[in-house]
Amino acid sequence: MFNCITIIGCGLIGSSLMRAIEEKELSKKINIFDKSNDVTSFIKKNFKAEAYKDISDSVKDADLIIISAPLSSYKEILLSIKDNLKKDAILTDTGSAKKEINKIINNFNLPNLNWIASHPIAGTEYSGPEAGSSHLFKDRWCILSSDENISKDKFKLLENFWYKIGCKVKFMNFEDHDYVLSLTSHLPHAIAYSLVRTAINNDDKFKNDIIQYSAGGLRDFTRIAASDPLMWRDIFIDNSENILKVLEKYVANLEEIKKAIINKDGNKLIEIFSSTKKIRKDIIKAGQDTEKPGFGRK
Amino acid sequence: MFNCITIIGCGLIGSSLMRAIEEKELSKKINIFDKSNDVTSFIKKNFKAEAYKDISDSVKDADLIIISAPLSSYKEILLSIKDNLKKDAILTDTGSAKKEINKIINNFNLPNLNWIASHPIAGTEYSGPEAGSSHLFKDRWCILSSDENISKDKFKLLENFWYKIGCKVKFMNFEDHDYVLSLTSHLPHAIAYSLVRTAINNDDKFKNDIIQYSAGGLRDFTRIAASDPLMWRDIFIDNSENILKVLEKYVANLEEIKKAIINKDGNKLIEIFSSTKKIRKDIIKAGQDTEKPGFGRK
Repeated sequence: MFNCITIIGCGLIGSSLMRAIEEKELSKKINIFDKSNDVTSFIKKNFKAEAYKDISDSVKDADLIIISAPLSSYKEILLSIKDNLKKDAILTDTGSAKKEINKIINNFNLPNLNWIASHPIAGTEYSGPEAGSSHLFKDRWCILSSDENISKDKFKLLENFWYKIGCKVKFMNFEDHDYVLSLTSHLPHAIAYSLVRTAINNDDKFKNDIIQYSAGGLRDFTRIAASDPLMWRDIFIDNSENILKVLEKYVANLEEIKKAIINKDGNKLIEIFSSTKKIRKDIIKAGQDTEKPGFGRK
Repeated sequence: MFNCITIIGCGLIGSSLMRAIEEKELSKKINIFDKSNDVTSFIKKNFKAEAYKDISDSVKDADLIIISAPLSSYKEILLSIKDNLKKDAILTDTGSAKKEINKIINNFNLPNLNWIASHPIAGTEYSGPEAGSSHLFKDRWCILSSDENISKDKFKLLENFWYKIGCKVKFMNFEDHDYVLSLTSHLPHAIAYSLVRTAINNDDKFKNDIIQYSAGGLRDFTRIAASDPLMWRDIFIDNSENILKVLEKYVANLEEIKKAIINKDGNKLIEIFSSTKKIRKDIIKAGQDTEKPGFGRK
């Protein structure tokens, strides 16, 4: 399908893509670049992909370049590769916020490059190439975003690539993407981090008890709060505008519960707690989670 | 082990206990009382336990009575059964908040009754007897709370009962229980309900997108926010003091993240996000969650 794909950044997501591309034979050649020597050694030892020491060398034959690195590194990556790009190559990424990086890439003004953003909504609480899996994207959504004047053929090529990786694909403009993700992913992470910090910072006397009895709810949040700190720093900075907006709405909802607790207002509490049951069913119906109790834990 | 156990309230937890008691042969006879005719019919149709129409009849032969009903119903239950209790019977429960119900039960001043509170930390997002399972308590903690003057023999008998059900058992006084659970369970629920309400109340234009792309974090919270509203209303009212206290600490932590986002303070964000990674490992080490990525979802 492609002659050469280059993946820049080979952690959980990048290495999962590499595995899927190899397994599904989506490219004759796979090039890898990662800043970390440990990552490069791991790839060399275990996979067929060619790992480069020089980032600009890694892209020169690529028909498709996938940036799978923290958002704050995009500018430096573009600076390093811009003069070595193959004519009419597609540039995509796997980042969780789009509006700011779109500005950065457009500012480079590279007329022979087809920039189409990708966001495969997949991942786990683990980081690094050892945690990757070729099945990570199976049945997950991948959101594509691009400017209107993009080549239709290139768009279709990339869309088809994600289908073959295993994703369902949808188009969304950069702004809508960042707003929807602020609610479905970024706000939940802010909340999870705050909760787990509240629980740990607590009185040492009860620390072991808190860990021991975490099955009553807390443990579900610790999974999310174990994600890669560097990646999340960049998301919170890039999508700050939306995150602050939804955080404000969230605090208002929290105040509503607080007020009902202070007033011991049973009817209001029932109203609040009943309103959220349905969305779980909708999410399961949409194939976005398992209906097994407790996520099917044993 | 017991001649007769009566379970009052036969939903998810009560029916799971009934199943486990039957399976492990922990009582010659099992009596059931539930206000709901649907529940009673379901039990009669599927299990050996005897379902009573009259709550006071259901307890008269019982050596062990287990209340597995919402906290707000305890007073009415005690009023209905207090004159029919067998001498030296053990009364226990499965409620998630202890201090207030302990006051209520002590106010009845029943000298021939051995009141020892139980809290098996187990459950799922589903309600009702159809959702029950005899394995629900396997390897879960059960916290026992009692006054100091309780009969040691009766305490051991109940402790042993929970061991045989499959639990690990720990003693904690009523106050400490309520504080620890406010952090591990009650605060997480308040937060999950607020988040899911923030996400649903949103602009209808994006509602379907929000459900569709919930795998990025939101879906984990919807599980918790699908729990039984009536049960949670009572917990929030009974344990309001602790919940409001930890909610305040939580809001302070949320403000810290908000400030770091406003200031685009990358170092502070990294510090916040890094501090929570370890607790996940501690929870897995304590056997309280699976180490499989994404809770082992497929």
